[in-house]
Amino acid sequence: MIIIMERSATEENILAVKNILEEHGFRAIVHVGDVHTVIDALGDKTTLSPSRLETLEGVNQVKLIREPYRMASRDRKEEDTVIEFENGVKIGGANRPVFMVGPCSVEDDYEGLLKVAVAAKEMGCQFLRGGAFKPRTSPYDFDGLGEKALKYLAQAKKETGLLVVTELMDSTDLDLVCKYADIIQIGARNMQNFRLLKAVGKCDKPIVLKRGPASTIREFLLAAEHIMYNGNEKVILCERGIKGFDSSFTRNVLDIAAVPVIKKYSHLPIIIDPSHGTGQRYLIEPMAKAGLVAGADGVMVEVHHNPAQAMSDGKQSLSIPQFKEVFGKLNLLIDTLHLEKNNNNQIKEA
Amino acid sequence: MIIIMERSATEENILAVKNILEEHGFRAIVHVGDVHTVIDALGDKTTLSPSRLETLEGVNQVKLIREPYRMASRDRKEEDTVIEFENGVKIGGANRPVFMVGPCSVEDDYEGLLKVAVAAKEMGCQFLRGGAFKPRTSPYDFDGLGEKALKYLAQAKKETGLLVVTELMDSTDLDLVCKYADIIQIGARNMQNFRLLKAVGKCDKPIVLKRGPASTIREFLLAAEHIMYNGNEKVILCERGIKGFDSSFTRNVLDIAAVPVIKKYSHLPIIIDPSHGTGQRYLIEPMAKAGLVAGADGVMVEVHHNPAQAMSDGKQSLSIPQFKEVFGKLNLLIDTLHLEKNNNNQIKEA
Amino acid sequence: MIIIMERSATEENILAVKNILEEHGFRAIVHVGDVHTVIDALGDKTTLSPSRLETLEGVNQVKLIREPYRMASRDRKEEDTVIEFENGVKIGGANRPVFMVGPCSVEDDYEGLLKVAVAAKEMGCQFLRGGAFKPRTSPYDFDGLGEKALKYLAQAKKETGLLVVTELMDSTDLDLVCKYADIIQIGARNMQNFRLLKAVGKCDKPIVLKRGPASTIREFLLAAEHIMYNGNEKVILCERGIKGFDSSFTRNVLDIAAVPVIKKYSHLPIIIDPSHGTGQRYLIEPMAKAGLVAGADGVMVEVHHNPAQAMSDGKQSLSIPQFKEVFGKLNLLIDTLHLEKNNNNQIKEA
Amino acid sequence: MIIIMERSATEENILAVKNILEEHGFRAIVHVGDVHTVIDALGDKTTLSPSRLETLEGVNQVKLIREPYRMASRDRKEEDTVIEFENGVKIGGANRPVFMVGPCSVEDDYEGLLKVAVAAKEMGCQFLRGGAFKPRTSPYDFDGLGEKALKYLAQAKKETGLLVVTELMDSTDLDLVCKYADIIQIGARNMQNFRLLKAVGKCDKPIVLKRGPASTIREFLLAAEHIMYNGNEKVILCERGIKGFDSSFTRNVLDIAAVPVIKKYSHLPIIIDPSHGTGQRYLIEPMAKAGLVAGADGVMVEVHHNPAQAMSDGKQSLSIPQFKEVFGKLNLLIDTLHLEKNNNNQIKEA
Repeated sequence: MIIIMERSATEENILAVKNILEEHGFRAIVHVGDVHTVIDALGDKTTLSPSRLETLEGVNQVKLIREPYRMASRDRKEEDTVIEFENGVKIGGANRPVFMVGPCSVEDDYEGLLKVAVAAKEMGCQFLRGGAFKPRTSPYDFDGLGEKALKYLAQAKKETGLLVVTELMDSTDLDLVCKYADIIQIGARNMQNFRLLKAVGKCDKPIVLKRGPASTIREFLLAAEHIMYNGNEKVILCERGIKGFDSSFTRNVLDIAAVPVIKKYSHLPIIIDPSHGTGQRYLIEPMAKAGLVAGADGVMVEVHHNPAQAMSDGKQSLSIPQFKEVFGKLNLLIDTLHLEKNNNNQIKEA
Repeated sequence: MIIIMERSATEENILAVKNILEEHGFRAIVHVGDVHTVIDALGDKTTLSPSRLETLEGVNQVKLIREPYRMASRDRKEEDTVIEFENGVKIGGANRPVFMVGPCSVEDDYEGLLKVAVAAKEMGCQFLRGGAFKPRTSPYDFDGLGEKALKYLAQAKKETGLLVVTELMDSTDLDLVCKYADIIQIGARNMQNFRLLKAVGKCDKPIVLKRGPASTIREFLLAAEHIMYNGNEKVILCERGIKGFDSSFTRNVLDIAAVPVIKKYSHLPIIIDPSHGTGQRYLIEPMAKAGLVAGADGVMVEVHHNPAQAMSDGKQSLSIPQFKEVFGKLNLLIDTLHLEKNNNNQIKEA
Repeated sequence: MIIIMERSATEENILAVKNILEEHGFRAIVHVGDVHTVIDALGDKTTLSPSRLETLEGVNQVKLIREPYRMASRDRKEEDTVIEFENGVKIGGANRPVFMVGPCSVEDDYEGLLKVAVAAKEMGCQFLRGGAFKPRTSPYDFDGLGEKALKYLAQAKKETGLLVVTELMDSTDLDLVCKYADIIQIGARNMQNFRLLKAVGKCDKPIVLKRGPASTIREFLLAAEHIMYNGNEKVILCERGIKGFDSSFTRNVLDIAAVPVIKKYSHLPIIIDPSHGTGQRYLIEPMAKAGLVAGADGVMVEVHHNPAQAMSDGKQSLSIPQFKEVFGKLNLLIDTLHLEKNNNNQIKEA
Repeated sequence: MIIIMERSATEENILAVKNILEEHGFRAIVHVGDVHTVIDALGDKTTLSPSRLETLEGVNQVKLIREPYRMASRDRKEEDTVIEFENGVKIGGANRPVFMVGPCSVEDDYEGLLKVAVAAKEMGCQFLRGGAFKPRTSPYDFDGLGEKALKYLAQAKKETGLLVVTELMDSTDLDLVCKYADIIQIGARNMQNFRLLKAVGKCDKPIVLKRGPASTIREFLLAAEHIMYNGNEKVILCERGIKGFDSSFTRNVLDIAAVPVIKKYSHLPIIIDPSHGTGQRYLIEPMAKAGLVAGADGVMVEVHHNPAQAMSDGKQSLSIPQFKEVFGKLNLLIDTLHLEKNNNNQIKEA
């Protein structure tokens, strides 16, 4: 940490900072400048919070040098995290990007769900996604079928071999969801529901953690850190759009740059969700492509057997024929560019 | 609702929209324009979601005329909601604005907490706030003392008569928190934790609901609607700053205009939190004043007996002497402007 | 336009709206609802501004159905605008994406500039970019060499055949800049400098118009409309990043979705600038790729012969060897995906 | 400056940074840490730009200690800048807050303008504002009467004694505008039109500089610095709302905290504009009050003699009776709180 003192700081102020640092095991080096005094503090930030130093008299600001996440950081683990499933499917590293597709909510029409799952299997997708418990902005909207939906997903898995991704909204449902899910999803609005992060940190299923719409990259990685710190290192990050100032044409701003940024600073896999990221069906194809060439390890897309009748998010869902067309193109893109996978986007600094 | 069709919409498209509307009990009036066809749909939105209409072929967009919240809306209830406590304290309406003060987290120093409570009582505050369960961005930060903190708050209440405000983070702690709290706080990061909103909707304590940092006014009122819809109408809204593009000088942008906007569209009381809203001690006084003259029903401020030793948020906390100085000025402002209370900020349109 | 009346609107209010509409040649259809009255106004918005209707007593809001830009709109001109240069280079439509590269500012080192130009030519770039007049946030920073820089660019053009792109900051320099430039650039901070837009609207050079950092898509297209309305239809839009809430890792948020959104609503070509869009050298390659697969008609990138000595924006500039590596990959991407160019990103709605 | 090296930085990298610093007259102190090496650079930033250091190999980041504006900074000039006009009116310091009112655009109805001016004089306002040259998002909107409008303003000044504030959009109109204006306004969209800032920096009229909708406080003060650096220190800042993510209820987010923040870091006066800041008539009173208690040196408000017929911004304009009611309350607020003026919002740190 670097502590920058106010111009008006007295010698006592400076000494007080030095003392508290040394009490906590830091080495403190004081540079008296013409204008400001600056103190370099070398030691373990966990023992003394920067925010505590900021409250001391005469302190102007405290600047951190190291990022506050550790387990999620590439500094700690250089190679990419790869998550492997029972059936051999792998996410992350040099593996082929995965596809997670399915309806926003699982509805009371198993045949409809199965149609989507069969089409997904046919297009080479590995995961079937669908909500059993749905967060809804308005209390008047449909909020999911609960366990019945989970059973439908399990049945579709049995018939197609697709793995199941579904959202957990509350720690009280953890055991129930674990019984049916291959991946547990934490929704964007729960990204900083720390009790929920702690709960899934104690289970052994891989987690898809969606970025909160107003979360910085640092907050996003710290949310992953909460899960990892509690024991579960199988975290898959998901960029799904951040809040912007223009919602006339897109629901959110899909922050494609988050993909290569996170690849640089973390070893965790990251996928993108162009359905929520844009809220527009016609943007799914170009934005999925953009995410893939920027290095995403997978794509999550909403597909519904009859979007016009969907209970939620129909507008941003692909119908089955649209899905086949779009994913045909995405598969072609991946195939065509495959050779570049291993040395993707690396610039030597020189 | 108003349904605007694409220029390219066919007669079949238009008929399909008309049919689905009529099936759901709407009256549909079709205006064929030179460029666009527009359909007015008169009926009850709860029976047919606009997002479902948006997925129909040939539909360009669906525009809502009425706001989607109902119980929280001033359309439904013209007079201000006033929340009254056992000891006669009232929040909302023409009542004197209330003060909720105390440390960010309750720490393991009861005497410190008591000092703050005694000073608060002396300055005419009605509520003691303090966190027993703390949401923390990083898993390495202090996250609260749990029940011990609740007991300390109860003890301080006993000694000073102040009512207790404390945060609930997870529905599993509801009974525990209800045992000690006079008001349950839902934090900004949980504003769209719908299961938690549902849980507190079923209890009978007043709720302080903090605005999420990227939540629109509509989302904020819909979060209140979740609580009300589940049975609890005693909701106090709290503006605590939204995410902005400049975090060099303030942590958030305190959206003072949210106060008069919400006063116009909702009957619920609204308070402001300049501590989180700015993250800067020196901004508490001017921003608390700004909120009060804009019509806020109360102010929530962090006060610590020794900010330099605080486990969290020390930088934005007032020390006890600073608190006395600032709240002396706020009391003076309220007293001086008291006569204006009843006809505050009303402009006749003419 | 659709005019939604307040619940409390009187018959006189409604009549007044109807009258003003009819005075301005609109057909007004009034629907009296149980809650609100809604008036459909069919006619030419240019004769009566919606903001004027909004001021009438009893009017709650006015909703527009048609976008306010016309010349820039695809509604008016279905086929893509293609801009052709003297030497046969074309921008837009099904043409190969173009590359505009060069230093942020032209500095007083012609040999350095020439090295960049020669490398650019070698990599198949069509345009040399470089600033003669530089907008600088601080008055203490280098603000360009003026005409000397323009002469250097002209000389480099002579030696390499590259076309010249350079920024115009003030209408008083228009003739000077026209003398040397093949494309005139309007910078992001001048996107709503309407006098400058008017000035370049009256010249016959193609214009690269950069999106303002807080501009909506609608404002962006309306800025283009200012230029077109004044007589110059050769506008090339440039997405260069919008202001976000997180500037720790990237300077701006490069809004890749703006590319397919604008392709849908406008016939104008659009290029992307990942240098300003991210402010980070290592993000240029993945974000350029992302923009290209999303449909961009070109890429603008900062390249400097010695970034460590650059007078401005060195951090986000590629050195010549880095440039060759990155553009080798971009060329490969374009070549590999070339066949998709004609049916890129089109989803049939069904 | 503090230069933080990459973990992977070599001794050569460190030496290279040290050398370049010393070449430019800095004293460089190197701290080799276990993880990172940090270099303190003591000297004059004007001689070496931090962005140049950031491009050096092995440099992770450069952190600034001092703000980059100087003339605008309170560090350089402790006492408040007070701007005095020919007729004795003063802005800034302990002076009574001023009022600048008038129509958005001056229209071709001198009697209407005069009515507003007479009412303004009667309510104790000091300035008449009105646009002769209007920036308009769409080229199809009314953009001002030009010199005729300036003549109307001059005539109204003659009849009422009010001083004139009017916007300059292009440096070519500078002499014309100077002839009529007592204060020249630079609009929000031109806040970073550096050529215009330079031009007004060379004239001797006071300038109202409006904050750009996506400008940080630092960029805002640097824009003022451009004017001051060119010779004109009479700059009045104006907070008029920043771009937010929710435009359903307000056009912008009026950043009230900018007032006390700027008061702390700069000696320049700052006023607020609740008309543009909110875009809603009913919010003018509460937001003007909020700005005043937060320390603003004045308020700028749009008033029109017949808002329903206004050529621009009618929706956010007050009619003359509304204006009298609102400004009666604002005057009362100022009178009532007057005694606090001198020790407003100062918290001793202790």
